[in-house]
Amino acid sequence: MRNLTPTSITAAFADYAKDAPSERTRSLLVSLAGHLHSFVRDNKVTPDEWMAAIDALTRAIRFTDDKRNEYILFSDLLGVSSLVDMINARPSGTPSSVLGPFHIENAPELKNGGDLWQGQVGEPLLVKGQVRDQSGKPAKGTVLAVWQNQGNGLYSQQDPSTGPTNYHARLTVADDGSFAYTTVRPVSYKVPDDGPAGDMLRALGRNAWRPAHLHMIVHAPGHQPLITEFFPEDDTWLDRDAVFGVRAPLVLPFAKVTDRAALPANLAARDKLPMPMWSATLDIVLPA
Amino acid sequence: MRNLTPTSITAAFADYAKDAPSERTRSLLVSLAGHLHSFVRDNKVTPDEWMAAIDALTRAIRFTDDKRNEYILFSDLLGVSSLVDMINARPSGTPSSVLGPFHIENAPELKNGGDLWQGQVGEPLLVKGQVRDQSGKPAKGTVLAVWQNQGNGLYSQQDPSTGPTNYHARLTVADDGSFAYTTVRPVSYKVPDDGPAGDMLRALGRNAWRPAHLHMIVHAPGHQPLITEFFPEDDTWLDRDAVFGVRAPLVLPFAKVTDRAALPANLAARDKLPMPMWSATLDIVLPA
Repeated sequence: MRNLTPTSITAAFADYAKDAPSERTRSLLVSLAGHLHSFVRDNKVTPDEWMAAIDALTRAIRFTDDKRNEYILFSDLLGVSSLVDMINARPSGTPSSVLGPFHIENAPELKNGGDLWQGQVGEPLLVKGQVRDQSGKPAKGTVLAVWQNQGNGLYSQQDPSTGPTNYHARLTVADDGSFAYTTVRPVSYKVPDDGPAGDMLRALGRNAWRPAHLHMIVHAPGHQPLITEFFPEDDTWLDRDAVFGVRAPLVLPFAKVTDRAALPANLAARDKLPMPMWSATLDIVLPA
Repeated sequence: MRNLTPTSITAAFADYAKDAPSERTRSLLVSLAGHLHSFVRDNKVTPDEWMAAIDALTRAIRFTDDKRNEYILFSDLLGVSSLVDMINARPSGTPSSVLGPFHIENAPELKNGGDLWQGQVGEPLLVKGQVRDQSGKPAKGTVLAVWQNQGNGLYSQQDPSTGPTNYHARLTVADDGSFAYTTVRPVSYKVPDDGPAGDMLRALGRNAWRPAHLHMIVHAPGHQPLITEFFPEDDTWLDRDAVFGVRAPLVLPFAKVTDRAALPANLAARDKLPMPMWSATLDIVLPA
């Protein structure tokens, strides 16, 4: 350890770690250090450049609180969150996607057919579909946790003028796996770019936009929760999602409904919805 | 971008960055993302494991202020700070080493021969030597910024009971490049291990100790500053330095002086020093 060189330091780190109590933790941290060492060596990173990285992590403190985490945002914008999602995804059924920072536990219950829109700003959207397993059997008892941004582009947590659970809900599907609710059409929006993660985007010549999406966690009895999101196929930002969350099977047509008689009978807001309005159909297949 | 796979995401990240204003910034960040992606893929990192990493960065907030930076500590303990130092070091002369977090600008002036010890706790140490260039010529006008921990193991910034500049000084060498001052013998100590960086050490079965050392920045006219540190060869932790800072040429004998007459004539504390005392000789050669 007195004759460290730029190449021997990685082995020295591994030697230091040889008594780690957990083999998994040991191999993860030795691998992480090794990749960071390779990054420094490959690029001949200068002290000023490395201090700029440390400084970004230190400045992230000022942009992190109980409603926002700049470290998660860095992970999202670097594609790491998306990659962790992909390599842990089950290969069959509806794909998973990134959770994002705006999920809340214990959102209010919404009856099947219920209305989240309630005349708020934006274009109303009917979301309907069915949850089935690999054999096509309806997934009775499934609870859908749904959340999305408001018509003004903000999640309720970002908007003091609305309640903290606006456009967050939990809905139990019907016995045949079907569900329907009305909401606002989600809109594309920028991830917060006023902190060091935003500085990274600007340094890369990148945009901060995410395409519009409907978040969902599918809690089906006897299955692991499926964390996913659905995108309208006419969104401008589908091929430039700042957080790498788009998966082709999650991109869906948002169609115009012109005939009120075509709306499901159980919609609570059926008679109050303006025509024409948007409609999206989510046929969800549980991964094996 | 709608058909991302665990392998294509790295190319997608590079494609996003193709309009980066600075080529150097672009290549650094594309390389960093690529190494992080490889880390995730190589190890099949799970969502819980990745969230533990994010959580460590988030918890580091509580251990970072104007006197301590947990992100720098992570960098030090991962060997990255030491590696950045090594790959940027000049190949000739006295080796450089890591700066550490306790350097202060504009420390008090100390006369050549001056005393930093002033009877404080610990064993007094004479530090003497000469600064020369590659041709052996004395480096007249050189200013040495020196700092170290106290006899109780704390840097002055960590010890409210002492002044903030205790054992921090700036000393100008004599025209023949020579210098001498008296101080306390620095002691080995643990880096702060009460935060998430300490959790990492425990998870690796590692110690938090650094061997005792004398920090120095050598400011010689016409040369880049040389940031380095010197270690006593009898220290227990030389081969287990938590921050990978030891370099063989920086390990020196600390000898006992038993004869007061052998002390340099210009020592301010010459008549007050207890005998025997420690002595270290630093022969510094400026890198080309």
